[in-house]
Amino acid sequence: MFESAEVGHAIDKKTYAKTVPELRESLLEAQWSLHEHGGFPVIVLIAGVEGAGKGETVNTLNAWMDPRHIRTVAFSQPTLEEAQRPRMWRYWQALPKKGQIGILFGSWYTEPIVNRVQRLSKKANLEMEIARINHFEQMLSDEGALILKFWFHITKKEQRKRLRAIDADPKRSWRVTKTDWRQFELWDRYYAISEYTLRNTSTGYAPWIVVEGTDERYRNLTVGTQLRDAILKRLALHKRKAVPAITPPLIEPIDRVTVLKRMDLSQAIPDKQYDKELEHWQDELLRLTRQKGFQDNAVVAAFEGMDAAGKGGAIRRVTGALDARQYQVVPVAAPTDEERAHPYLWRFWRHLPRRGKLTIYDRSWYGRVLVERIEGYCAEADWMRAYAEINEFEQELVESGAVLCKFWLQLSPEEQLRRFKEREGTGFKRFKITQEDWRNRDKWALYQQAAADMIERTSTSIAPWTLVEAEDKNWARIKVLRTLAEAIRKVV
Amino acid sequence: MFESAEVGHAIDKKTYAKTVPELRESLLEAQWSLHEHGGFPVIVLIAGVEGAGKGETVNTLNAWMDPRHIRTVAFSQPTLEEAQRPRMWRYWQALPKKGQIGILFGSWYTEPIVNRVQRLSKKANLEMEIARINHFEQMLSDEGALILKFWFHITKKEQRKRLRAIDADPKRSWRVTKTDWRQFELWDRYYAISEYTLRNTSTGYAPWIVVEGTDERYRNLTVGTQLRDAILKRLALHKRKAVPAITPPLIEPIDRVTVLKRMDLSQAIPDKQYDKELEHWQDELLRLTRQKGFQDNAVVAAFEGMDAAGKGGAIRRVTGALDARQYQVVPVAAPTDEERAHPYLWRFWRHLPRRGKLTIYDRSWYGRVLVERIEGYCAEADWMRAYAEINEFEQELVESGAVLCKFWLQLSPEEQLRRFKEREGTGFKRFKITQEDWRNRDKWALYQQAAADMIERTSTSIAPWTLVEAEDKNWARIKVLRTLAEAIRKVV
Repeated sequence: MFESAEVGHAIDKKTYAKTVPELRESLLEAQWSLHEHGGFPVIVLIAGVEGAGKGETVNTLNAWMDPRHIRTVAFSQPTLEEAQRPRMWRYWQALPKKGQIGILFGSWYTEPIVNRVQRLSKKANLEMEIARINHFEQMLSDEGALILKFWFHITKKEQRKRLRAIDADPKRSWRVTKTDWRQFELWDRYYAISEYTLRNTSTGYAPWIVVEGTDERYRNLTVGTQLRDAILKRLALHKRKAVPAITPPLIEPIDRVTVLKRMDLSQAIPDKQYDKELEHWQDELLRLTRQKGFQDNAVVAAFEGMDAAGKGGAIRRVTGALDARQYQVVPVAAPTDEERAHPYLWRFWRHLPRRGKLTIYDRSWYGRVLVERIEGYCAEADWMRAYAEINEFEQELVESGAVLCKFWLQLSPEEQLRRFKEREGTGFKRFKITQEDWRNRDKWALYQQAAADMIERTSTSIAPWTLVEAEDKNWARIKVLRTLAEAIRKVV
Repeated sequence: MFESAEVGHAIDKKTYAKTVPELRESLLEAQWSLHEHGGFPVIVLIAGVEGAGKGETVNTLNAWMDPRHIRTVAFSQPTLEEAQRPRMWRYWQALPKKGQIGILFGSWYTEPIVNRVQRLSKKANLEMEIARINHFEQMLSDEGALILKFWFHITKKEQRKRLRAIDADPKRSWRVTKTDWRQFELWDRYYAISEYTLRNTSTGYAPWIVVEGTDERYRNLTVGTQLRDAILKRLALHKRKAVPAITPPLIEPIDRVTVLKRMDLSQAIPDKQYDKELEHWQDELLRLTRQKGFQDNAVVAAFEGMDAAGKGGAIRRVTGALDARQYQVVPVAAPTDEERAHPYLWRFWRHLPRRGKLTIYDRSWYGRVLVERIEGYCAEADWMRAYAEINEFEQELVESGAVLCKFWLQLSPEEQLRRFKEREGTGFKRFKITQEDWRNRDKWALYQQAAADMIERTSTSIAPWTLVEAEDKNWARIKVLRTLAEAIRKVV
């Protein structure tokens, strides 16, 4: 993979001087079209051997283009803010939005490669990381991002020469750290593991481009040209896909039995017993979230369910047990324009709690496979791939030490109707029933089928759904509280 | 000020039980109207004596209302992220948006009061802090926020009793820290300084409400009722102000001489000399931003000027000198909907650099007194108050250790016309001239007057404007680079 970057590529001064003005002009034009069009984000990963001119080339790119629409982010050791959230959190924060070019130094590749080189992880771990990276990049690509991954390569001999030269120059010596030299000693291992990783992550949607770093002019021209051509090619292809309003055919199982229909909605708790149990479980929740051990964990709770199933009431019973400084409730409504300019899951990533905190999502990332699927807000291909993306997201969450609970609140259509009518009768504005609620009700069967599909595809051993019988509010609230408390108890 | 909160207010159990359901219902209704209307943010500050039930009351409020539209933030010691930015940065990040209630524990009052109590600051410092807080709250209020400041008070005797009781209870003892006991020893001093601060920050737009904290029921009812009434009162008053498209009358000085007209636009640098100077100043800028001392400072550069005056070109000469990992260029265009839901300056605060970094604003917070003033995007009262708000903002910046440079690029109408025509002639899409550019050109005199007013009112000793003669691009670019380099040199 690196052989072709060891052949001694070079561009002479004259050719460079002749080529650069044209390239700059067309790069600027490509960038401007991209920005004006606002159609897709461009993610440029800069990786490779230390001393191969990564920084210089990125500075040249910034000089050639309009730096106002480029966002360059360098990653080193995670800050405390970052370390207290799932590993991918900081990369999500750094993703460029539509129309923008994001240049990432030290991306999601650094840790897996370096850990393996330093024998902090096993081969199987690297394999797993590679599989995940491929899924992640596939998701970015499916969400419309253009991904360019540049690997800067120089030979071992050349690297030694460069590190020494920089070290000797007082103006630049700050750039070579002890880590660089330590890494150099592991050159052969680093070479092999990088090559293996690149080979296995060079996909159709996000291929690696290996750049020989020895000659500055060659390096700059290669990266500049690749970037320009990729943007232009994509712009030519890119047309705003009109999303057809698909109403997916109802493919119920032949016997019409879904997991939701098997739920025993007759379960109930009488008021007196409820009061006692409520107090018990709220006390327990408070106690657990104040344990010292809780400071190492975060809690993410997602609530989904039919309209009027009592999500709000259940959430209030949870927050009622907690200290207001510890939790955040995120009501999920229509995305803001900043959210729309990023991949779908971005708006959930941004609210993830740090350790010792709880985030409660009132409706969640499952909107894609529920309302968006049914109302045709996204294409069938988009919600179909969402199941796998969501499973990856939740795995990342759980592995970062978060306690994840997902609740589906189910009630019967008769009880929903009763509650709608009751709400229409009360004076409370907050409980008013809108036309939309009635429309959704007409699509009861579609929502039930979408929910059943969702549970089938996303109830995993690491992130199972809790199906909550919500016909009786007491029962539902206690079940939610108990489930949460028991999940937290396992970890503190 | 605290006497009325030492009279032994109490509510009996029966009255409480009778009042709470009504209060909850009307609070929910008020909150719902607020959210639906989305008209203004509600900022609730919770301050006061330790052990006076602040946390309990906030938890009760969260239980009574819909926690999905409340955001509770507690401030303690600044994190590294926070400590590396101006002191007010973290409060800006925590401000609720329109339609939301933000509950802030430990607000901008904590530090000034505690520092004075512990004799870390002088009386004059406290005075200054008080003046600033008043300006800040006035700005929030002018931007439409409803501000409620609750001070929880108990007597010295009562506090001693409570601290001891909590300390003795193993379930709650985590809540009393050594700091609390140390603070208790300073009770009398704390009392006097708090009272002084409250008296001087109890303004018409943001009055303090002192709440006796001894009786839980009294405390909860007082805060709940005040909050509800304030929201309802404001909702009743609140109508979306239609902003009239004011074209302010042209009040030029009688002799028609402004600071802009006094600029010598004939200054120029020949190309050959320019190349040399460019290299010199870019090298200098690079050298300075790599000094160790630079890690203690941040740089904020704001570029304003007439269309086609060469802001973009000047910015590229600056970024061309820097490492792409160090800077961020923020192009200021129409605000996103998240930005519109916050006070005007919020969108500039969010991009402020941490120490060791640079943020370059292409157009800036001055938009309010330039384009917004001229196009009538905001009311006259709003842009008139902006001058003082901007001066405060910049003072905060500079005092946090940031180097602030503000550039006004000036050219003649003839040169602008020449550049417009030249741009129309080039193939570059990015240089295309829009109808808007021609319309702005028709308002040349208005823009010049607005700029002259702006410079007069915001060129302060701590944050002076640099007027850049931009008729000759070489001259302009060198002046920008030199000014920046010299400003940084003073601090590293």
